[in-house]
Amino acid sequence: MAEENKSKSTNNKQIVFKDYVVGYPKETDMELRSSEPSIMVPPEEGGLLLKNLYLSCDPYMRGRMSKPIPNASYVNSFVPGSVITGYGVSQVIDSRHPDFQVGDLVWGFTGWELFTLLPTPLGLTKIKYTNDHNIPLSYYTGILGMPGLTAYVGFHEICSPKKGETVYVSAASGAVGQLVGQFAKLMGCYVVGSAGTKEKVELLKNKFGFDDAFNYKEEQDLTAALKRFFPQGIDIYFENVGGRMLDAVLLNMNVHGRIAVCGLISQYNLTEHDGVHNLFCMITKRIRMQGFVEPDHKHMYPQFLELVVQYIREGKIVYMEDTAEGLEEAPSALIGLFSGRNVGKQVVCIRHDE
Amino acid sequence: MAEENKSKSTNNKQIVFKDYVVGYPKETDMELRSSEPSIMVPPEEGGLLLKNLYLSCDPYMRGRMSKPIPNASYVNSFVPGSVITGYGVSQVIDSRHPDFQVGDLVWGFTGWELFTLLPTPLGLTKIKYTNDHNIPLSYYTGILGMPGLTAYVGFHEICSPKKGETVYVSAASGAVGQLVGQFAKLMGCYVVGSAGTKEKVELLKNKFGFDDAFNYKEEQDLTAALKRFFPQGIDIYFENVGGRMLDAVLLNMNVHGRIAVCGLISQYNLTEHDGVHNLFCMITKRIRMQGFVEPDHKHMYPQFLELVVQYIREGKIVYMEDTAEGLEEAPSALIGLFSGRNVGKQVVCIRHDE
Ligand SMILES: NC(=O)c1ccc[n+]([C@@H]2O[C@H](COP(=O)([O-])OP(=O)(O)OC[C@H]3O[C@@H](n4cnc5c(N)ncnc54)[C@H](OP(=O)(O)O)[C@@H]3O)[C@@H](O)[C@H]2O)c1
Ligand SMILES: NC(=O)c1ccc[n+]([C@@H]2O[C@H](COP(=O)([O-])OP(=O)(O)OC[C@H]3O[C@@H](n4cnc5c(N)ncnc54)[C@H](OP(=O)(O)O)[C@@H]3O)[C@@H](O)[C@H]2O)c1
Repeated sequence: MAEENKSKSTNNKQIVFKDYVVGYPKETDMELRSSEPSIMVPPEEGGLLLKNLYLSCDPYMRGRMSKPIPNASYVNSFVPGSVITGYGVSQVIDSRHPDFQVGDLVWGFTGWELFTLLPTPLGLTKIKYTNDHNIPLSYYTGILGMPGLTAYVGFHEICSPKKGETVYVSAASGAVGQLVGQFAKLMGCYVVGSAGTKEKVELLKNKFGFDDAFNYKEEQDLTAALKRFFPQGIDIYFENVGGRMLDAVLLNMNVHGRIAVCGLISQYNLTEHDGVHNLFCMITKRIRMQGFVEPDHKHMYPQFLELVVQYIREGKIVYMEDTAEGLEEAPSALIGLFSGRNVGKQVVCIRHDE
Repeated sequence: MAEENKSKSTNNKQIVFKDYVVGYPKETDMELRSSEPSIMVPPEEGGLLLKNLYLSCDPYMRGRMSKPIPNASYVNSFVPGSVITGYGVSQVIDSRHPDFQVGDLVWGFTGWELFTLLPTPLGLTKIKYTNDHNIPLSYYTGILGMPGLTAYVGFHEICSPKKGETVYVSAASGAVGQLVGQFAKLMGCYVVGSAGTKEKVELLKNKFGFDDAFNYKEEQDLTAALKRFFPQGIDIYFENVGGRMLDAVLLNMNVHGRIAVCGLISQYNLTEHDGVHNLFCMITKRIRMQGFVEPDHKHMYPQFLELVVQYIREGKIVYMEDTAEGLEEAPSALIGLFSGRNVGKQVVCIRHDE
């Protein structure tokens, strides 16, 4: 689909956000819109015109679909009637900015559309390793992009891991989780992950090298399940889901354990968040629980990139993507995150030709 | 009362724990028992006989009244039918331990009774500064004992405070809270405390030097109250109470704020703990929340003692106690903690003559 659009016209196509969402998002909360070819006007001074190649579907985008609540989030809500924005991989096709040349490949914030006119290339990173280096460009939505840095700093900076410690990762087969598990294994930890299907559990054990894994949907009693997988207790919990999972984990943590609060995806579609009841364990077990966001750690990107590209080349880390083909598929790919439809990092491929 | 007992006979009197408690503890969960004078037998090799002077009423003792749950706490439950144990100040009246002489004043774990036979003086600390140095012995149940070290390490080690930061303390007029506020003021922070009566609020402002204070029982909306007292947000929260207070605090925390989880007294008498709903703020505000217990930091006691004794002498810190007279009063003093009857550190004076 994307192929045809590109070759036959310069019309833009966009995924537009319709209106604020309450509860679970639906495909119909977004719509495809074709605009005039006027998009091909050159950018203003300091701006860029991008041709988008890959778009990233990320759970935090659900927060941007809610009506804005002052001080409640660190990202702005989408504007009803406007194009959805998010991370993506793009090529510069026109530039009036001295740092960017036509042909440059970049990753960062772009629009859910075929072409994006950026008034200023804020937070855009030039891509150093490309197909020429055997690095798929789509990786900059995942392992070499925002989720990759999230996994890296979340594990290494927030969890204070030590060799031999036990690590539990929830939503473990996803964009972030599969990497946390692999970083933890490289560090010499004992790692167990949970995910929502049998297929994902197999991947965790057989592809990503987790020591063990389980399907949380098949466990009546999460506290007992964790006790089974961690008879000696959990030293580190990488929190991706929240709610009752966190309560079960708190009961299974070891003294001086650490919890990195990366995400609470089980809560994002609830109008009132579940209560967490076992915080008294924070005291009895002297737990450190710490929230973090990837943008705070952006300065670590260069060292992270070199390290992880090296790991990829040496086959020390693998990465799994789930690719939806065509801009039209983006809305369903995005909402699929909240039912666990994605197996690995959810990417939308807009064009195959780069 | 205590006076008479001591001088007229060597009978022991004890407060005995009757049976495990569910919900709020009552005076009748404990009872006074007189034992044979046989207590005056000399200690075995390595042991001590203590004459108890002051007993400490501490909120954690509620946990010891519950039926034991494996791995749920770091302290053991009381044994039904046995004497209650806790922190206290005592004098050695017989010793078969080389480190202790008759006449020594000590603080640490003892029994809720007139005389205590200790098989081994585990965790007992010899008192260095006494009435001769203008330091009341009762202070070793509070400012110079376990609550004092709790306040000191909880604030300085767990909260990572910086001059100029905003600090909120709950249960602020109590044994721990009044000190946290004063340590924070000495560090140059802006400090607000909450407590449950008008009298306590006045003390916070006029005696302990808090910048501001409020009665949480008079606030319909704790989130709005905290917004009023911290228009610029809270950098540090010293958590003594938990439950809905924590939820309100989370909404008012600043980015990179820290929460020291010292206690959750509002939850100790509930059969199911309240749910905390606003943990998503941990991520958006990159909060670090950390539980701690005083015994982990015992090695800091000597430096803490010198510093705080100096502060007391220079009048830089004041301390308020609420003293119940006589062993018989201990049960009601203890349960009073959970209705906020105590104004300052709750002590039980057993004897006045030391
Ligand atoms: N702090 C940061 O800077 C930062 C950055 C990136 C991501 N995050 C967070 O990290 C987490 C993972 O993100 P990701 O990009 O790696 O997403 P992902 O794991 O690739 O996709 C989301 C996955 O979450 C699981 N899930 C959905 N609803 C769930 C529920 N109710 N209970 C349990 N699991 C559920 C599903 O897998 P199952 O089949 O296993 O249920 C789904 O596949 C999210 O919470 C996200 O918000 C935070
Ligand atoms: N982690 C550690 O090592 C450690 C060591 C010592 C103490 N602690 C904890 O620190 C906290 C304070 O201890 P403390 O010895 O200083 O006790 P305290 O404050 O002297 O006495 C307890 C006070 O808590 C308040 N309170 C009681 N029930 C409450 C409720 N439902 N909601 C709000 N406030 C309530 C009452 O004051 P109001 O009139 O203000 O309601 C009461 O006076 C406790 O949670 C305790 O468990 C922890």
